[in-house]
Amino acid sequence: MKEMLKQDPRKYKGYRSSGIRLNEPFMPELSKLIDGRNNNMLPPIHKFDQAHTVMQVEQGMLTREAGAAILKSLLGSEKEGVIESRVRVGGGLHSGEQYVIRDIGEEIGGQIHLGRSSGDLSSVGINVMQRNKLVAGMKAINRARRFLLEFAAQHLQTVMPGYTFGQQGQPLTFGYQMVAWAASLERDFERFAQTYRRINVSPAGSAIMVGSDFPIDRDRTAELLGFDAVHENCADSILNRSMDDILELPMVLSIIYHTMAKWADDIILWSTSEFQFIDVPDRYCGSSSIMMQKKNISGPAEIKGASSYALSSIVVAYHGLKGPTAWAVSERGYALEATWRISDMLVVHLDLLCQLLKDSRINVDKLLTSTGSYWAAATDLGGYLVRERGLAWRTAHQIVGIMIRLAEERGLSQKDVTAELLDEAAVAYHGTPVGLTQEEMVSALDPVMFVERRTMKGGTAAAEVQRQINVFKGRITEDEKLLRDIEDRLADADQKLSKAVSAIVNGG
Amino acid sequence: MKEMLKQDPRKYKGYRSSGIRLNEPFMPELSKLIDGRNNNMLPPIHKFDQAHTVMQVEQGMLTREAGAAILKSLLGSEKEGVIESRVRVGGGLHSGEQYVIRDIGEEIGGQIHLGRSSGDLSSVGINVMQRNKLVAGMKAINRARRFLLEFAAQHLQTVMPGYTFGQQGQPLTFGYQMVAWAASLERDFERFAQTYRRINVSPAGSAIMVGSDFPIDRDRTAELLGFDAVHENCADSILNRSMDDILELPMVLSIIYHTMAKWADDIILWSTSEFQFIDVPDRYCGSSSIMMQKKNISGPAEIKGASSYALSSIVVAYHGLKGPTAWAVSERGYALEATWRISDMLVVHLDLLCQLLKDSRINVDKLLTSTGSYWAAATDLGGYLVRERGLAWRTAHQIVGIMIRLAEERGLSQKDVTAELLDEAAVAYHGTPVGLTQEEMVSALDPVMFVERRTMKGGTAAAEVQRQINVFKGRITEDEKLLRDIEDRLADADQKLSKAVSAIVNGG
Amino acid sequence: MKEMLKQDPRKYKGYRSSGIRLNEPFMPELSKLIDGRNNNMLPPIHKFDQAHTVMQVEQGMLTREAGAAILKSLLGSEKEGVIESRVRVGGGLHSGEQYVIRDIGEEIGGQIHLGRSSGDLSSVGINVMQRNKLVAGMKAINRARRFLLEFAAQHLQTVMPGYTFGQQGQPLTFGYQMVAWAASLERDFERFAQTYRRINVSPAGSAIMVGSDFPIDRDRTAELLGFDAVHENCADSILNRSMDDILELPMVLSIIYHTMAKWADDIILWSTSEFQFIDVPDRYCGSSSIMMQKKNISGPAEIKGASSYALSSIVVAYHGLKGPTAWAVSERGYALEATWRISDMLVVHLDLLCQLLKDSRINVDKLLTSTGSYWAAATDLGGYLVRERGLAWRTAHQIVGIMIRLAEERGLSQKDVTAELLDEAAVAYHGTPVGLTQEEMVSALDPVMFVERRTMKGGTAAAEVQRQINVFKGRITEDEKLLRDIEDRLADADQKLSKAVSAIVNGG
Amino acid sequence: MKEMLKQDPRKYKGYRSSGIRLNEPFMPELSKLIDGRNNNMLPPIHKFDQAHTVMQVEQGMLTREAGAAILKSLLGSEKEGVIESRVRVGGGLHSGEQYVIRDIGEEIGGQIHLGRSSGDLSSVGINVMQRNKLVAGMKAINRARRFLLEFAAQHLQTVMPGYTFGQQGQPLTFGYQMVAWAASLERDFERFAQTYRRINVSPAGSAIMVGSDFPIDRDRTAELLGFDAVHENCADSILNRSMDDILELPMVLSIIYHTMAKWADDIILWSTSEFQFIDVPDRYCGSSSIMMQKKNISGPAEIKGASSYALSSIVVAYHGLKGPTAWAVSERGYALEATWRISDMLVVHLDLLCQLLKDSRINVDKLLTSTGSYWAAATDLGGYLVRERGLAWRTAHQIVGIMIRLAEERGLSQKDVTAELLDEAAVAYHGTPVGLTQEEMVSALDPVMFVERRTMKGGTAAAEVQRQINVFKGRITEDEKLLRDIEDRLADADQKLSKAVSAIVNGG
Repeated sequence: MKEMLKQDPRKYKGYRSSGIRLNEPFMPELSKLIDGRNNNMLPPIHKFDQAHTVMQVEQGMLTREAGAAILKSLLGSEKEGVIESRVRVGGGLHSGEQYVIRDIGEEIGGQIHLGRSSGDLSSVGINVMQRNKLVAGMKAINRARRFLLEFAAQHLQTVMPGYTFGQQGQPLTFGYQMVAWAASLERDFERFAQTYRRINVSPAGSAIMVGSDFPIDRDRTAELLGFDAVHENCADSILNRSMDDILELPMVLSIIYHTMAKWADDIILWSTSEFQFIDVPDRYCGSSSIMMQKKNISGPAEIKGASSYALSSIVVAYHGLKGPTAWAVSERGYALEATWRISDMLVVHLDLLCQLLKDSRINVDKLLTSTGSYWAAATDLGGYLVRERGLAWRTAHQIVGIMIRLAEERGLSQKDVTAELLDEAAVAYHGTPVGLTQEEMVSALDPVMFVERRTMKGGTAAAEVQRQINVFKGRITEDEKLLRDIEDRLADADQKLSKAVSAIVNGG
Repeated sequence: MKEMLKQDPRKYKGYRSSGIRLNEPFMPELSKLIDGRNNNMLPPIHKFDQAHTVMQVEQGMLTREAGAAILKSLLGSEKEGVIESRVRVGGGLHSGEQYVIRDIGEEIGGQIHLGRSSGDLSSVGINVMQRNKLVAGMKAINRARRFLLEFAAQHLQTVMPGYTFGQQGQPLTFGYQMVAWAASLERDFERFAQTYRRINVSPAGSAIMVGSDFPIDRDRTAELLGFDAVHENCADSILNRSMDDILELPMVLSIIYHTMAKWADDIILWSTSEFQFIDVPDRYCGSSSIMMQKKNISGPAEIKGASSYALSSIVVAYHGLKGPTAWAVSERGYALEATWRISDMLVVHLDLLCQLLKDSRINVDKLLTSTGSYWAAATDLGGYLVRERGLAWRTAHQIVGIMIRLAEERGLSQKDVTAELLDEAAVAYHGTPVGLTQEEMVSALDPVMFVERRTMKGGTAAAEVQRQINVFKGRITEDEKLLRDIEDRLADADQKLSKAVSAIVNGG
Repeated sequence: MKEMLKQDPRKYKGYRSSGIRLNEPFMPELSKLIDGRNNNMLPPIHKFDQAHTVMQVEQGMLTREAGAAILKSLLGSEKEGVIESRVRVGGGLHSGEQYVIRDIGEEIGGQIHLGRSSGDLSSVGINVMQRNKLVAGMKAINRARRFLLEFAAQHLQTVMPGYTFGQQGQPLTFGYQMVAWAASLERDFERFAQTYRRINVSPAGSAIMVGSDFPIDRDRTAELLGFDAVHENCADSILNRSMDDILELPMVLSIIYHTMAKWADDIILWSTSEFQFIDVPDRYCGSSSIMMQKKNISGPAEIKGASSYALSSIVVAYHGLKGPTAWAVSERGYALEATWRISDMLVVHLDLLCQLLKDSRINVDKLLTSTGSYWAAATDLGGYLVRERGLAWRTAHQIVGIMIRLAEERGLSQKDVTAELLDEAAVAYHGTPVGLTQEEMVSALDPVMFVERRTMKGGTAAAEVQRQINVFKGRITEDEKLLRDIEDRLADADQKLSKAVSAIVNGG
Repeated sequence: MKEMLKQDPRKYKGYRSSGIRLNEPFMPELSKLIDGRNNNMLPPIHKFDQAHTVMQVEQGMLTREAGAAILKSLLGSEKEGVIESRVRVGGGLHSGEQYVIRDIGEEIGGQIHLGRSSGDLSSVGINVMQRNKLVAGMKAINRARRFLLEFAAQHLQTVMPGYTFGQQGQPLTFGYQMVAWAASLERDFERFAQTYRRINVSPAGSAIMVGSDFPIDRDRTAELLGFDAVHENCADSILNRSMDDILELPMVLSIIYHTMAKWADDIILWSTSEFQFIDVPDRYCGSSSIMMQKKNISGPAEIKGASSYALSSIVVAYHGLKGPTAWAVSERGYALEATWRISDMLVVHLDLLCQLLKDSRINVDKLLTSTGSYWAAATDLGGYLVRERGLAWRTAHQIVGIMIRLAEERGLSQKDVTAELLDEAAVAYHGTPVGLTQEEMVSALDPVMFVERRTMKGGTAAAEVQRQINVFKGRITEDEKLLRDIEDRLADADQKLSKAVSAIVNGG
C-alpha cells in the first residue's frame, strides 16, 4: 500500500501525476486546449532523446547497459511510428521518457531525463522545426528565383508599361520586371539564411535556464543534432532566445509574403477586362453561380489572404510574449502555431505563383499597344530635346508637359499628336519653337526604342537584361551551394547520431 | 506674353506649376498634409545633388562650367543652412533644383535633374536616413553590451531567483542574468548590421524604374555617396526595394524593443513592495498627488510604451504598402515617419535603461533570502539522490516533489523541512527511505552552492560566467571594428565627394 | 453525344464544371487550400435553401409541386445529417443545389438558385454564424457577471491593496474589485448586443450586388431566417456590409479578451511566491520535469495566449480586406476563420476563468497584512490632517510624504512609525508640528477603516458595495431579458420556417 | 531654515518636488519624453478644476471664501490663455493647482485637490477629449452622408459596372453605388454614437480607484461637466474604464478608415488610363519630375496612408495596455496620441473625399460603354431563358456560360455575338436550341435595361434608388437631431458651470 504513489510503469503517463507535487489531475478542459500542442515536434525530440542518452553514456552519467536499453526502446518505438507510439503514451515533450518507462521500467527509463528539462526539450524541438521551415522556404525561394529568370529570358522584348501611383510611368519589358522580382527574392533568401544561422544554435543541455551540475557535454549533443554552435550562456539559450528567435521567423516570412501578395495583386489587376495583360489558365480560376461570364482569379487571392495571416503571426508573437522574462511560456505555443502554419503555406503558395505565371498567356500585343497609348515614353522626348536642341532638362520637361496637357484638352491621343503641337507648347513656355520633324517626335516616343536605348547597368535593353540574368543566376548557384552545405551538415549529424547509437546498442 | 508659362527663375518653386502639365495649383489642404514630409531627408539629398552633378560632368552630360556653377550654388546654400535654404524655396525632394534655378537661372540650373527622378532622389534619401538610424542604433547597442558585461562582473556572486511562468525556478546570479541580456543584444547588433548591408546599396541613377538613356555612371555616384554597391536592376532598386527595405527596419527595431520592454517589466516587477529586489533612484520615478507613499517607476514604463509603438510601425509599413507594384507611394511616408520616430527613441531608451541599472541599488541580501525561501534549489536535492543514492532521476524527482507537497500541506517552509520528511516522501513513493542526513539535505538545497556547482559551459559558477564575459567582450571588440569600418567608409566617401566637387569648382 | 456537357445529375458537383464557362477543372492544389472553408456554415445555408424555396413558391417563381419536391429533398438530407450529406456531394455554399439535383434532377432541382448568388448565400451564412457567436458570447458574459457579483458578495470585507504602476496604491476589498470586473463585462455585453443588431440584418435576396429582376420578397425570407430587418440597398448588403460587419466582430471580441488577459495577469501575479494573495487549485496547474517545487498557473496563461490571437484576428480582417470595393473576396475566409476560432475560445475561457476564481483560496490574512505594510492608507492620514488640523490638502500631502521618506531612509516600516516622526516632517515642511497622538495616526493609517470610511457612491464600504451589486444585478436581469427576446425571436423564425415548409410539402 | 521644504508659492511647480517623498528631481531626459503629453487636455481639465471647486463649496468641504478665491484665480488665468498660463507654471494635469498656488498661495490654493487624484483628472481629460473627437467625427460623417445622397441623386441613370474579384460582375448605377457608400457611413455614425454613450460617463470624484472619504458629490460634478452619468464603482471608473474606453475609440475609427481607404482605392483604380471612369481635378494631383505625362492621384493616397495609421493605433493601445490591472499607465499616453491624431485626420480626410468626388468629372459615356463590353448583364440573358423558355435557372446559366466561352474562344466580343451561338451552346449542353431572336438576346444583355428591371426593394431602378435616398435622408435627420441633443446638453452643462462659478465668485 505504501508503494501506491509510484505508478505501474506500464501505465506511466508522465511526472505530473496527482499525488506527487500536486494533488489533483490536470483539468480536462485545459488538457483539451493544450494537448497535442507539441506533438508536431516529436520527431526532433525523438532525436534529442537519443542524442542526450548517447551523451550521458559517453560522459559516464549513465552506464552503457542502461544507455543501450533506453536506446533500444526508443528505436523500438519507430516500428509503430515515432509520432504514433508517443501519442499513444500521452504525447508531448516527455513522451520519450513515457514510452521508455512503460517499456523497460522506471529504474532505467527514469534516467533518460537527467540534466535536462522541458526548457531544452521544447527549445530543441522549436529550433529544429524552425530550421526545417527555413530550409524548405529557402529551397522554394531558389526554385522561384530560377523560374523567374528563365521566364524573364523569354520576354526580353515583351514591352509593357511600368506604373507608379497606378498610372503608367515608363516602358519596360516583362522580362525586366521578372528579373526585378527575382532580385527581390534574393534578399529573402539572404534573410532566411541569416535567420537560420541565428536559430541553428543548440539549447540542448541548457536545461531550464542554468544547465546542470552533472557533467553535460553540450558540444557533443549539439554535434549529434546538427546545430552549428551552442550558446555561451544557458539563460540566454532558454529564457531569451526562445523570445527573439520566435519573433524573427514570422518577420522574415512576412516580408516575402508581402512581396508575393504584391505580385498577386499585379496579376489580378493585369487580368481585369480593362487591362487584359495576361490570361490566367482556367484551372486557377472560379466562376459564378449567377454571373456566367465571370472568371475569378482565385489562386493569387489565396496568397493575399495568407499574407494577412503572415502579418498577424508577428502580432501574435510580439503581443503574446510581452511581460517580464519568461513570464509568458504557454503563449509561445500560439505564436508558433501561427508562424508554422504560414511557413508551410509559403512553400505551396510560392510554387503555385510560379506555376501560374508559367502557365499563363502573356498578351504581348496588348501590352505593346497599351504602352504606346498613354505617353509612357514621354521622358525620352524630353531627353531628345536636351540632346538635340541643347535645352536644359527642366525646360524640355516643361515643354513636353505642356504639349501633353494641350493634347488632353483637345481630345488628342498619343497617336494624333503633331510636331506642331510640340512647337506650340515650346512657344507657350519660352517663346521659341523646338522645330522637330514629325518623324523625330514619333521615334522619340516609341516604347520599343525607349526600352532598347537603356543599355546602362540596370537598364532595360535586352542585352543588358540578359547580363542581369547571368549575374543573378550566378548568385543562385552560390546560394544553392550554401543550402546544400546546410543539408549535408544536417545529414552528417544524422549519421553521426545513428553511429553513436549503434555503438552503444551494439556494445561498441 | 507668350513667355508667361516660364516662371521668373527668382520665384521658381518647382516643376509642378499650374499651366504646365496640370491646370490648377495643388490644393492647400493637401499641401498641408504632405508638405515637409521629406524635409528631414534634405541633408542626404543635398549630397546626392552634388554627387549627381559631379557624375554628370565626369560623364560629359554637363559642361564643366555648368557643373561648377551648379556646385557653387549648392555650396553657397550651406551658409544659410542646408535645410533652411531649401525650405525657404519650397522644400521637398527637388529643393536643390529649386534653389539653384532661383540662384543661377533655368538654363544652367535646369540641367541638374537630367537622368534622375523623384524615385532615386527619395530612395537615396530614405536609404541614407535608414543607414544613419542603423549606425546610431548599432553604437547604442554596443555601448549597452559593454555596460551590461561590466555590470555583470560586479555581480558574479549576487545570487537571485530565476523565474518561469512567474514562479521561482532555479537560483542564478544577477551577473549571469546580465550576461544573458548582453548576449541577446549581440543578436540585435547582428540583425542591424545585416539590414545595413541590404539597405546600403545605391538607388542613385535608377531614376523612376528603368534608369536613363543618358550615360549615367551609377557606380561613381554610389561611391561618392558611401554606398557599398548598386542594384543590378533599376526596377528592383526603385519599385521593389523601397518596399522590402521599408519593411525590414521596423522589424529589427521591434525585436530589440520587445527585449527592452521585457527588461523594463523585470525592473518594474523587481521594484514592487512584494519583490524589493532593486531600488531605482528617485530621479527615474514619479510620485502621486493623492497617495504620498507612491514611488512610480516611470523610466521603464516609457520604454514599454515605445515598444507598442515599435510593433505598430510594422503594421503601418505592412498595411500601408499593400497593393499592386508601386501602387502605394505616399503611404511610404506614413511608414517612414513611424519607423524613424521609433529608431530615434531607441538610442535614448537604451542608454536610459543602462544608466538606470547602473544607478540602481541591487538588494543583494533580499535576493539571497528570497532565493532560499521557496525551494528554488530543489533540483539539486534530486540530483544529490541520483548521485549518492543511485536513484533514477525520475524517482528522485518524484520523491522530492512529494516532500515539498507534504511541507506545503503542513505549513512548513523550506527552512523548517527535515530529512525525516524526505524519508516519509520516499517511503510514500516506493516504500524505501533515502536516508540523507539533515546536513546533506540543507547543503543540497543551498542556493549559493547550487550556483557554484554549475561550472559547465554556459553555467552559473562565477569563474564560468567570467569566461562568458570574456567571450562576449571579444565579440563586441569585433563588432566595434565592423562599425568603425562602416564609419570610415562613409567618411571616406564624404571626402571623395568634397574633392571631386572642389576639382570641378576650382577648375580641376 | 451532343448532350455530353450536361452532367449526369447523379454525379452533379456544381456549376463550375469543365466545359461550361471554363475549360479546365479547378486545380487540386487550390481546391485543397479552399475546400471546406465554408462547410461550417452549412446549417444556416440549409435553412436559407428552404426559406428561399418557400419564398419562390409564395411569389409564384416556382410551382408548388416543384417547391414541394425541392423541400422534400432538402428535408430528406437531414437523415444523413445536414453537413454529412452536403459534404458528400462536394460541400460548399451550393451544396444544397448539388444535393437536390443529384436527388431529383436538374429540371426541378436546378430551379432552387433562381434570383440568388454566392453573394447572399455566403452573407447569410456569415451573418447567422456571427449572430450565433455573439449570442453564445452574450450568454457567457452574463454567466460571468452573475458569478462575479455573487463572488463579490462573499468578500465585502476582504481588504487588499489596489495597485497602479505595479505599486501599492490604496486599500480596497476583494469584493469591490470583483464588482469592478463585473462592471467591465456589462459594457462588453452592450457592445456585443449592439454589434448583434448591426449584424442581424438580412442579405438574403440581395444576390451578388443588385438583387434580381424576379419578384423576390426579401422581407419574407428575412422573417423566415430570423433577421431583424433587410438592407435598403443590395450593394450595401453584399459589397459593403461584408466588409464592416467582418471588421466589427473581431474588435468587440478583442476588447473583452484584453480585459480577460488583464485578469489572468492579475491572477498570475497574485500567485507568485512573493505576493501569495491567492491559491489556484492544482487542477489548473502544471509542474516541472526538473524543478519539483514548481506549480505553474496554466489556465490564465492560455487566456493570455488567446488574447494575442484576438488582436491578430483584427489584423487579418483589416489587412486582408484592403483594396478596391469587393476586390478582396477569398481573403474574407481568412478573417472569418481567425475570428470564429477566437469567438469559440471566448466562451470556454470566460467560463474557465470564473470557475478558477470560484475554486481558488483567497488568502484573506495575507491580503490584509500586505495592505497594512506599505503605507497603502497614507492618503487618509493626509485627509485626517485636513479635517482635524485644518491644513490645506497639499500641505498635508507633502508632510505625510516627507514622513514616509524619512521612515524609508531610517529603515522604519509602517508599523514602526511614530507621531514624532510625523511632527518632524511637519516641522521640516513648514516649521510647525501637527501634534497627532500615536493612536490617531495608527487609526488614520488603518486599511480596514480606510475601506469602511468610503461610503460615497462608488466607494468601498461594505454596504455601498452591496448597493453596487444590487444595481448591477438589476442590469443583468434586463440584459438576460434582452437575450431571451433575441432567442425567442430566433426560435419563432425557426417555427415559421418549419410551418411554411410543411404547408408546401403537405400541399398547403 | 526648517521651512526650507515648503516652496516659495510663487515658484511652485508641483507636488513632486525633491525633498518631499523623493530625494531627487525628475531626470531631464525623462521629463523631455513625458512633458507636454497631457497639455492638449488642459481645457477640459480647467473646467474640471472649476467644477470640483464648486462642488467642494456646495458640499462644505471648502469655505465659500476659499472657493471664490480659487475660482477667481482660475478665471484670471483665462486672460493669458488657459493653455499658455498653465504651461508657463509647468503644465500637466496639476497645472490648475500650480497656477492657483502661485497666484494665491498654498493655504488656499492647496485645497483645490482635496478628494481628487491624477486618476480622475486624467480620466476626465481623456473622456472629454474623446467625446469631442467623437462629436467632430459624427458631424463629419453626417456631412458626408448628406453629400453622398445628393450626389447619388444626380447619377440615378449613370450606368456603370459593379465588380467582384476585380472582374466585372453586374451593371448598376453610379448613384446606386453612392447610396451604398452613404449606407455604410450610417453604421459608422451609429458606432460613434454608441461609443459616445459609453465614454460620456463621469470619472470625476473617483480619485485614483476608491473615491474619497470626504463628502464628494459625484453626480453634481458630472452634471457640471456634461457627463450623462457616473460610474457605480470607482475602481471601474479609473482602473478598468481607462482600459476598455481607450481600446474602443481606435476601433471605431479604424472601421470607418477602412471604408474610406476602400473608396480611395476605387477612385485610384477608376482614374487609371485603363479604366478612365473618373477625372479627378488637377488640384488633387501631383505630376512627375521625369515623366511629364503623369497625373498622380494624391488625395486618396493620403487617406490610404492614414488608414494604415488607424489600424496601428489599435495595436498601440492593445499592446501598450497589456499587463496586470493598472500596471500600464504611462503607456496610455502612447495610445491616446496615436488615436487622437487619427481622429483629427478623419474629419479632414472625410471632407476631402467628398469634395474630391463633387469636383470630379464622372465619365458617363465611358462607364456605359464599358458596362456593355464584357457581358456584365449576362445574368439577365439566363433569366430571360427561365422566364420565356421555361428552363431551370441552372440549365439557363450553363447554356449562357457555354456561349460566352465559345465567343471567347472564337475571338468574338459581346457586340459580335449572335442568337445562333446561343443555340449552339444550348444544343451542346442538352441537345436542344433555345430559339431566341437576335433582338431578344441583345435586349436581354442591355445594361440600361438590366438596371431598370431591378425595381425590387434594394434594387437599381432609378425610382427605387430615389426611394432609398429618401429613407436614408430621413435617418440622417434623426441622427442630426441626436447630435444636436448632445451638443445642447454639453452647452447646457457649460452654462450651469458658469452660473455656479459666478454664484460663488459673486458671493452667491
